[in-house]
Amino acid sequence: MATIGDIAVAAAINIISALIFLIAFAILRLQPVNDRVYFPKWYIKGLRTSSPATGAGAFVVTKFVNLDYRSYFKFLNWVPDALTMPQSELIDHAGLDSVVYLRIYLLGLKIFIPIFLFTWTILIPVNWTNNTLEHSKETYSQIDKLSISNIPHASPRFWAHVAMAYIVMIWTCFMLKKEYETVANMRFSFLQAEKLRPHHFTVLVKNVPKDDDESVSETVDRFFLVNHHDNYLTHQVVCNANKLAKLVKTKQKKQNWLDYYQIKYSKNPSKRPIMKTGFLGVWGAKVDAIEYHETEIEKLSNQIAEERKNVMNNPKSMMPVAFVSFKTRWGAAVCAQTQQARNPTLWLTEWAPEPRDVYWKNLAIPYVSLTVRKLLMGVAFFFLTFFYVIPIAFVQSLANIQGIQKAAPFLNPIINIKLVKSFIQGFLPGIVLKIFLMLLPKILMMMSKFEGFLSISRLERRCASRYYLFKFFNVFLGSIIAGAAFEQLSTFLNQPANQIPETIGIAIPMKATFFITYIMVDGWSGTAGEILRLKPLVIYHLKNLFLVKTERDRERAMNPGSIGFNTGEPQIQFYFLIGLVYAVVTPLLIPFILVFFALAFIVYRHQVINVYNPKYESRAAFWPDVHGRVITALVISQILLMGLLSTKHAVASTPVLLALPILTIGFHIYCKGRFEPAFIRYPLQEAMNKDTLDRVVREPNLRGYLENAYVHPVFKDAAGASSDYDDDHHHGTSVNIVPTKRQSRRNEDTPEPSRRSSDQMIIPETHKP
Amino acid sequence: MATIGDIAVAAAINIISALIFLIAFAILRLQPVNDRVYFPKWYIKGLRTSSPATGAGAFVVTKFVNLDYRSYFKFLNWVPDALTMPQSELIDHAGLDSVVYLRIYLLGLKIFIPIFLFTWTILIPVNWTNNTLEHSKETYSQIDKLSISNIPHASPRFWAHVAMAYIVMIWTCFMLKKEYETVANMRFSFLQAEKLRPHHFTVLVKNVPKDDDESVSETVDRFFLVNHHDNYLTHQVVCNANKLAKLVKTKQKKQNWLDYYQIKYSKNPSKRPIMKTGFLGVWGAKVDAIEYHETEIEKLSNQIAEERKNVMNNPKSMMPVAFVSFKTRWGAAVCAQTQQARNPTLWLTEWAPEPRDVYWKNLAIPYVSLTVRKLLMGVAFFFLTFFYVIPIAFVQSLANIQGIQKAAPFLNPIINIKLVKSFIQGFLPGIVLKIFLMLLPKILMMMSKFEGFLSISRLERRCASRYYLFKFFNVFLGSIIAGAAFEQLSTFLNQPANQIPETIGIAIPMKATFFITYIMVDGWSGTAGEILRLKPLVIYHLKNLFLVKTERDRERAMNPGSIGFNTGEPQIQFYFLIGLVYAVVTPLLIPFILVFFALAFIVYRHQVINVYNPKYESRAAFWPDVHGRVITALVISQILLMGLLSTKHAVASTPVLLALPILTIGFHIYCKGRFEPAFIRYPLQEAMNKDTLDRVVREPNLRGYLENAYVHPVFKDAAGASSDYDDDHHHGTSVNIVPTKRQSRRNEDTPEPSRRSSDQMIIPETHKP
Repeated sequence: MATIGDIAVAAAINIISALIFLIAFAILRLQPVNDRVYFPKWYIKGLRTSSPATGAGAFVVTKFVNLDYRSYFKFLNWVPDALTMPQSELIDHAGLDSVVYLRIYLLGLKIFIPIFLFTWTILIPVNWTNNTLEHSKETYSQIDKLSISNIPHASPRFWAHVAMAYIVMIWTCFMLKKEYETVANMRFSFLQAEKLRPHHFTVLVKNVPKDDDESVSETVDRFFLVNHHDNYLTHQVVCNANKLAKLVKTKQKKQNWLDYYQIKYSKNPSKRPIMKTGFLGVWGAKVDAIEYHETEIEKLSNQIAEERKNVMNNPKSMMPVAFVSFKTRWGAAVCAQTQQARNPTLWLTEWAPEPRDVYWKNLAIPYVSLTVRKLLMGVAFFFLTFFYVIPIAFVQSLANIQGIQKAAPFLNPIINIKLVKSFIQGFLPGIVLKIFLMLLPKILMMMSKFEGFLSISRLERRCASRYYLFKFFNVFLGSIIAGAAFEQLSTFLNQPANQIPETIGIAIPMKATFFITYIMVDGWSGTAGEILRLKPLVIYHLKNLFLVKTERDRERAMNPGSIGFNTGEPQIQFYFLIGLVYAVVTPLLIPFILVFFALAFIVYRHQVINVYNPKYESRAAFWPDVHGRVITALVISQILLMGLLSTKHAVASTPVLLALPILTIGFHIYCKGRFEPAFIRYPLQEAMNKDTLDRVVREPNLRGYLENAYVHPVFKDAAGASSDYDDDHHHGTSVNIVPTKRQSRRNEDTPEPSRRSSDQMIIPETHKP
Repeated sequence: MATIGDIAVAAAINIISALIFLIAFAILRLQPVNDRVYFPKWYIKGLRTSSPATGAGAFVVTKFVNLDYRSYFKFLNWVPDALTMPQSELIDHAGLDSVVYLRIYLLGLKIFIPIFLFTWTILIPVNWTNNTLEHSKETYSQIDKLSISNIPHASPRFWAHVAMAYIVMIWTCFMLKKEYETVANMRFSFLQAEKLRPHHFTVLVKNVPKDDDESVSETVDRFFLVNHHDNYLTHQVVCNANKLAKLVKTKQKKQNWLDYYQIKYSKNPSKRPIMKTGFLGVWGAKVDAIEYHETEIEKLSNQIAEERKNVMNNPKSMMPVAFVSFKTRWGAAVCAQTQQARNPTLWLTEWAPEPRDVYWKNLAIPYVSLTVRKLLMGVAFFFLTFFYVIPIAFVQSLANIQGIQKAAPFLNPIINIKLVKSFIQGFLPGIVLKIFLMLLPKILMMMSKFEGFLSISRLERRCASRYYLFKFFNVFLGSIIAGAAFEQLSTFLNQPANQIPETIGIAIPMKATFFITYIMVDGWSGTAGEILRLKPLVIYHLKNLFLVKTERDRERAMNPGSIGFNTGEPQIQFYFLIGLVYAVVTPLLIPFILVFFALAFIVYRHQVINVYNPKYESRAAFWPDVHGRVITALVISQILLMGLLSTKHAVASTPVLLALPILTIGFHIYCKGRFEPAFIRYPLQEAMNKDTLDRVVREPNLRGYLENAYVHPVFKDAAGASSDYDDDHHHGTSVNIVPTKRQSRRNEDTPEPSRRSSDQMIIPETHKP
């Protein structure tokens, strides 16, 4: 077990590495050449553009490097900037999803600061003033003296811990309820404030029954004319454009290569670029790369045109899925919430996601197969969680020296070099695991896609909950009882049900130092690393070097990314879990978590303002998941405390503790009934309200607007729209993009030349499409 | 363990007792004096009435006793009568609930007849042709030779049992699906065929928010005029008439006593009846009973009038609950299925139950308290199930001889009589338990009422599921591992999770004979006893003797009862459970279950036709529960088989068996999605359909009809309507009550005089209100 000194050293290392990241960021972000990496959000919003290539030589350097030495002194001045943008402005700027996501960090602070104060003033003295550990023969550290381990068996002092468990529960639930209420209200206000958006009026209808005499479109029309005759307006049938999308994607790839070769050629006009047509450009006949790609693109263009015609005209490519639009929000809300036909698996309706949130590929999966897919993925996830170690161990066994020597004896001379040998022996097995863990979110996303969710937001939510489960079993439980999950599984199956919390409970105080280190590495340094955006930085400059020809290419090359709910949220939840579990057991751990929440809040707020460009706006639909997982963590912490205390022979406290999870679950059920519907349905009163307001303000050409709102992005691209997502996004919020006071202040800390150029280029509102 | 001989004896005893019941029934039912006990349904429908008191002396005897000896020979001829009424006619006659309830017995036959054939042709030979038991030193019987116990450890023959488990699952699921589909369709057809009924157009709105400036009625009016302006028609606010109902009930009781004393006086006019006013008429001043009751009733009548005025005028007696009616079924369906307000706990809407199905007392419980009540009752039920033995043991300990002697030493002389002593020692403890078990359904019903369900049908459904759980833990598991449930609980908590099915699995084959006896006593004799209706018979004649003055009193005195879903259905389910568990383990048990299902089907079909008068019509809303419990039984049987086989060292079969519960649960999820909505919601297409038909057929004065449809029965009684339930019921089905061919045939086997009188009295359709 680590001493306080060990932890201090670890803390120092991590603080220093975090500081290095922050300083590196502070320097890099001031360079104009990195402007598109660190401020892409402003470019996307059209409030900043690259400075035009002026001929004046004096500016060439300042275009890439910031020479204003004064700006380097204030290397932390992005922090107040990140913090001062008011919430309403931030919602306009980055959307509700991002703002609510940031509230998760705030929630962490709100929950753990009072817990920190309470536990440190009450539990630390209670724990410290014993000398159980001194009298025992076991080795112990000062940290253990501060924890529950220092209390003798069956001591009445345990009542302090029990009382604290109650305080933690009550406080956490209180904050959770307040937050749920706030978020629900924010969601409604956002909905009410939004301009006319297609998904307000539209319902996604799945499983339209087949009719041999009619096309899907006619069936839909007839059904809704009969059953919603007062409200029905128009509809769009979804067509299966998956093949077309694939062709377009291939064409885009070829186009990239063409660009690459053309730039290469223009830099060195003496030599036509040559390539090989075979696998990865390693084998095959040598051809002129530019010509080859041009013909390939030509070919693809023809194929695309043909396929497009096919999709448009072939009735078989029409899917039994349609986006049905109504005259009023009320009509759409009614249709989305009701059962249409006697057979509940036909004419399934749900509130349509935003057009850019639709995951088009999955719109064609039939209902029955969905159940099977769900079941399959459930089983697959079970095996992934509990037995993932097995294939990895298999790969690791292949990746050892004897394995490689056997499989590829010709590599012997290289392997026998000592450095290579030790590398293979030392790193390769670890790297295999690391690669798996890096791929895990992608695997989970593939699984969710296979399950057939229809919107990107739901895909991400599903991934998040699975990722959290994986982390819980393999990182949390895995670290505590040190063993792969499938070994735990067999332990648990062979153990009486009431001994499981005891087994874990005993181990918990001993693992406190491990988790403190984990928080510092993953939470502190990791978060500081996030702000540096090392990967996008490198990729952007590479793309800039090899692919960018026009301003639009550069626009494409910058990859603002998004918050990444599917991996980010489970990470935060993991800290909630650790915090709640250790709040009563080892209060020493709480400040480390507080530092994480504070740092992450600042960093991510900065990123949300300057970097991330959300792929969709789900209007905080993820909050019930967030709430549910904090509740889960709370219940887990209570059960483990029960297990721990029962091994401490504090038997009298067990019935008192038993009430904790029951109360917590009761609270959760209450919240579910009270707040969750706000995240699923559009209440008729709200819809009617907004309809009435709308009628007063304007009477738009609704049919024309809605008729083409839900078109597969492939068709939109072809129609010449630059990017449907932005298009759509701006439709709703364009009026808000005026250079606000906040934003112009933001600009102040980019150095003079850059600032001037960006000031020059602010596009006035009228300029925008 | 019992031998085949033992079972044969038990079977003989039970068959004889069943036969005695049936013969007694055959005789009693032919006596005209019992006509109202055995054929109340026909009286309620108005197709039979008592013969008028003719003066002719010759008829006095035949009025009470059937002297036609020929009719006694055909003592089983009610059986074909019970079976031949076609389903559609039965639905008209007794309602959909009863018809679907009978289908549960049929489902039992449909599931278990093929299982019987399969297991007897395959498993019995497989089991019999071993001699494991002969070589073992344990005692065994021929029954065990037919069961799985006779197969040696790790024998490949177990694959036959595994295959059979699959066949059982597939067949059961297939039948369940077919049945679910049929019932769902029957429900829709019934809805479509129904005449205009108030609940088609009405939605129950709970939790209307308080408004200081407006009455509840005005708030409701305004809200629905705004948010459902095209569809809203009218509403009725519910008032808290619980106190009024109580007064009316008290008055009714006093009235009964008054009647009793008046009849007593009229029989013996020389002596005015005297009573004591104190507790139970034992203490207190002596008064003239008739005068006393007359003044009491007078007093109550005044109180009732005052309270009625109070309820009508006091705005505080208005509950925040209203029945809101719409112009169309479509409008009502929309309102019932949607969320109205931003706060999902306000303006809660649900499809209104039938007027006679409403449980008025619970309409005033606020939402928050509902959650708490649910939680409380959940905890209470847990303790009731697992610890009910403790209070009973306590009472039993009080009810022993020493206890009584201590508490009441003056009883010593009586107790010391040997007969009394042995009675107390032998019977009293058992009787305490018996009384508890008899009270159990009442206790469960009280718990459900406390939980706040709003309709009688839902109350009964809740009770049924709890009663089933209780029976599962205390009768099924209790018999198998012989111990009170709370002892099991501690065993299970202290045992590894995977050993629980093993512990039970081992015990299962040994308990087969116990369950065979159980089926014969509870299933055979019990069912035969049901048809005798001993308790209603006695009570009717007592009432007839002491209370009945007028024809209407006699009408009231007959208590047709109803099917009693809350106790009847769990009983059937218990047989499904035993049957599925033993299908593979001891196939010998199956025919006993088949006899039960067949006998019960005939008996209950007879009762449904001739006796029961349903309290409500829920249109088979209980079927999802029935389906779910059969699935539960199936999963339990599979898990126990797994446990059993793993103790038999048939390890290879475990993974194959593991797929069984997974597939079953998958099937259940599929069915839930596919069929359950039919039992909860009114699909818009159906509603629109019926609306359209309605428009063609007639345009009734809908507002007038709906305005007073949902009035507390207390007000209706006062208004002079004889019985709101019948009133309402006849409104919908009156046209169907024409003497059908079926019914007139039915009458043939009641003897001449009775038949003539009933023929005379058939009220022509036009006569009815």
